[in-house]
Amino acid sequence: MKRPVGTPLRDDFQLVREAVPDAPDGGMVVRNRFISLDPAQRGWMDDAPSYMPPIALGDPVRATTVGVVESSRNPDFRPGDWVLGLNAIEDFSVVLPGGFTSRINVGIVDRPSRYLSAVGAVGLTAYFGLLDAGQPQPGETLLVTGAAGAVGSMVGQIGKIMGMRVIGIAGGAEKCRRLVQDYGFDAAIDYKGKSQDDIAAEIAAAAPQGIDILFENVGGAVMDAAMLNLALHARVVLCGLISEYNSAQKVGMRNLWQVIVKQATIKGFLIAAYVPRFAEGGARIAQWIAEGKLRVDEDVQHGLDNAYDAFMRLFSGENTGKLVLEVD
Amino acid sequence: MKRPVGTPLRDDFQLVREAVPDAPDGGMVVRNRFISLDPAQRGWMDDAPSYMPPIALGDPVRATTVGVVESSRNPDFRPGDWVLGLNAIEDFSVVLPGGFTSRINVGIVDRPSRYLSAVGAVGLTAYFGLLDAGQPQPGETLLVTGAAGAVGSMVGQIGKIMGMRVIGIAGGAEKCRRLVQDYGFDAAIDYKGKSQDDIAAEIAAAAPQGIDILFENVGGAVMDAAMLNLALHARVVLCGLISEYNSAQKVGMRNLWQVIVKQATIKGFLIAAYVPRFAEGGARIAQWIAEGKLRVDEDVQHGLDNAYDAFMRLFSGENTGKLVLEVD
Repeated sequence: MKRPVGTPLRDDFQLVREAVPDAPDGGMVVRNRFISLDPAQRGWMDDAPSYMPPIALGDPVRATTVGVVESSRNPDFRPGDWVLGLNAIEDFSVVLPGGFTSRINVGIVDRPSRYLSAVGAVGLTAYFGLLDAGQPQPGETLLVTGAAGAVGSMVGQIGKIMGMRVIGIAGGAEKCRRLVQDYGFDAAIDYKGKSQDDIAAEIAAAAPQGIDILFENVGGAVMDAAMLNLALHARVVLCGLISEYNSAQKVGMRNLWQVIVKQATIKGFLIAAYVPRFAEGGARIAQWIAEGKLRVDEDVQHGLDNAYDAFMRLFSGENTGKLVLEVD
Repeated sequence: MKRPVGTPLRDDFQLVREAVPDAPDGGMVVRNRFISLDPAQRGWMDDAPSYMPPIALGDPVRATTVGVVESSRNPDFRPGDWVLGLNAIEDFSVVLPGGFTSRINVGIVDRPSRYLSAVGAVGLTAYFGLLDAGQPQPGETLLVTGAAGAVGSMVGQIGKIMGMRVIGIAGGAEKCRRLVQDYGFDAAIDYKGKSQDDIAAEIAAAAPQGIDILFENVGGAVMDAAMLNLALHARVVLCGLISEYNSAQKVGMRNLWQVIVKQATIKGFLIAAYVPRFAEGGARIAQWIAEGKLRVDEDVQHGLDNAYDAFMRLFSGENTGKLVLEVD
């Protein structure tokens, strides 16, 4: 057994069949129905210091899941309850006492998987990342990288709700078309096949006054191009660096000097810091969806035996919206 | 005529002799006595977007100077007034109406060059950079890179005044000795001849709880090593990147991902933003000096014809304290 090096290979994973366990004392067993597939999971596979311990060798791949309580020895949960929790890519999860699991009200959403997208960590990341870390003002310009992704497409739409001019960067003409036509971005820039200088010039053309908030999901050359176009006192919300999650060598950023020149701020953002405000954010997002102001797409893949191929869609850029694995 | 590429060469500069000009209408002529030599000047020599326009080809090298008004057609200044202003490396400067020049009270300092160090931009950079951008708390740990430099040695001492644990990184055993013995740092780390991993390990040993404030003057491998040792919610005050000012290729930072993991903030700092608060900062610094709490060294070099060699001391690391060129 070994950890993935660089891009995960099919052979780095195994599908293992075991008997469904009994609920432990004070805990429960959850039958997972929807499993969240996220770039952060790649980070958890490395044996590197991070905000969570690495996944132990041989353990199932840690994942946020939405499921139904199958059996419970925890007095707070009953069989049949819908729950959201940090479990793994597996059909049945054992939840120990004290594990992170909360009951969810699936009655307020059109399907339970929404708790993995719009009103889950993805939506809350977009919401608190832009509004709290970014502090947007009406009339300011927002640039979102990885804009067609689950977080990015919500960030851009929330930016429009806040009265910003919104520019998105994505890979490919079809994604750029969706940014403008489906998500209401003011402009979209396709980075594919372009040099950093070309991307920087296209950003400058789309944002002649400069970027007030850079919502960064990608890193690498795209981020470096964006950094050359910051406005004075720009805020960079550093939410993700998906371009380097599969690199053994960290790429980072070369245009750091622009942070000085523009008196800019870079804020590292982790949604975990906002747990006490999840209900507040979730309610506002649900309201925007009900009012038709916010469109949230899910890319639902099917079957545990399809988990590897589904996960790799994150890195090939194939996924359109929040990537979810449904356990059929 | 051409701009320097990489490390400035002696031939990139010329010593030119001209008649002393007359004071222009509404302006004055200042006889410079002390000229500030700063890393930022190297940046101004590039034809690159920055917070100030590049020095025009053939113009004297822009510099902050302390001097005496020689002749004046500005009713606010009289011959004999001591002034601080943005002029150039030259013995006489023409100050146009509206140029940045202020009268200074040399009576409160032991020598006029203090307005280029402790109570000038250097001292104010340390003061506002640490206190305002860094927001230090007693008991927190401060790491200063370029710690033996003019700004760095003041930052560390102000950190001690604020009740912090202070660690400095500098190049060479003698500089490290000065950090601890002359400036009262708790620990000093010599980066010379060490790998990034070695430096990171020494920081970890000196700051087992992590770095709460990184005051960054250097960039490159030293910064990357420091970034691996941030505490949760660390603040990085990005004041300078002297390691790359002579590089055509910007180096930047590779361990940007740590900003996310540690929910850290990087703030780009320019002292120009604090002009309205200079008097407040200068008074507090002067008080600390008078109380013997703050030691500020100057490295005074002599003679305009020595300007190139003096300037290069910034990049060789030879200077001990704020580098000043005295016009004899």
